[in-house]
Amino acid sequence: MKLLEDRIRRDGTVREGNVLKVDRFLNHQMDIELFQEIGREFKRRFAGEEINKILTIEASGIGIACVAAEFFHVPVVFAKKSKTKNIAGDVYTAQVESFTHGGVYEIIVSKEFLGEGDKVLLIDDFLANGKALEGLAKLIKDSGAELVGAGVVIEKGFQRGGEAIRRMGIRLESLAIVESMDCGTGEIIFRPQ
Amino acid sequence: MKLLEDRIRRDGTVREGNVLKVDRFLNHQMDIELFQEIGREFKRRFAGEEINKILTIEASGIGIACVAAEFFHVPVVFAKKSKTKNIAGDVYTAQVESFTHGGVYEIIVSKEFLGEGDKVLLIDDFLANGKALEGLAKLIKDSGAELVGAGVVIEKGFQRGGEAIRRMGIRLESLAIVESMDCGTGEIIFRPQ
Repeated sequence: MKLLEDRIRRDGTVREGNVLKVDRFLNHQMDIELFQEIGREFKRRFAGEEINKILTIEASGIGIACVAAEFFHVPVVFAKKSKTKNIAGDVYTAQVESFTHGGVYEIIVSKEFLGEGDKVLLIDDFLANGKALEGLAKLIKDSGAELVGAGVVIEKGFQRGGEAIRRMGIRLESLAIVESMDCGTGEIIFRPQ
Repeated sequence: MKLLEDRIRRDGTVREGNVLKVDRFLNHQMDIELFQEIGREFKRRFAGEEINKILTIEASGIGIACVAAEFFHVPVVFAKKSKTKNIAGDVYTAQVESFTHGGVYEIIVSKEFLGEGDKVLLIDDFLANGKALEGLAKLIKDSGAELVGAGVVIEKGFQRGGEAIRRMGIRLESLAIVESMDCGTGEIIFRPQ
């Protein structure tokens, strides 16, 4: 998605440790007109698929998922990150390793909002090591719902996540795939799509 | 807002300890068409005000703020909840007491995204004791930005928050104000507006 790649080049910054900072428009300050173009593109890529729910994860996935949902005319459910042990039996849970913060956290979705008959599109802002998407895919599987595919705004193509998700047989649509980036020069190279 | 009050009566549940659960449509599963009506109503109530930014707080404020922002044609910034001590000097911070979870957490916004010249509308899903809104108002004050007003989806009118915010001279627009609720009968009474 050229508009997005141009925006990443213009407003993104590359930091040491393979960090791509896009908080000017994606995950701290959010450019809603860009989100509308992102939503439109997800709809274009998943046109013809039957989807009745979008699942995302707090916090930075929520805004993108909500604006995208306007093009799909479906509700959004967001998985909550929980540091407390879940005691109730009324939620699906998965463990997720964090690339950004280290450690492991638990994600939960109420059983009321995911189940048999649901045809689910996953939406998230970033795909790096893929652990969050894998956790969301597990929640969907446990619930008996069907995973239609995953839409990601930025994939770090040089980390394992994209390949891992595709190998699981999940249809993955990443709107921009960073092939490589250089924190010295700030150069970002995208994978041609 | 009658549509919202009807929805709260239909899909909300009253629990012990003054808990109003609205996770079927507002803060776990999110009804995006309802969010559009909410956004339209915020725009109607703040029509004529100059607003160039919406500020909200993770996680459940983000979806509402993003859909509302489409009516205002402005970007959204969300304050992050941080449990780690902030060490960098490039963020505004405030302490917030939590009603839901107990304890105190810190909220932060990067200085890059809030400052002099900004005319800010606060958006959040719930107003109970008002501590989150007070924290957001402090961030705005510290940044030199102007607080135009606050838009809240559900105010618990029997808790202190609404009065506290209005006493601070902040223009507060709550789309539904719960005057009282009964966890025995499930009855919810709204303040006439």
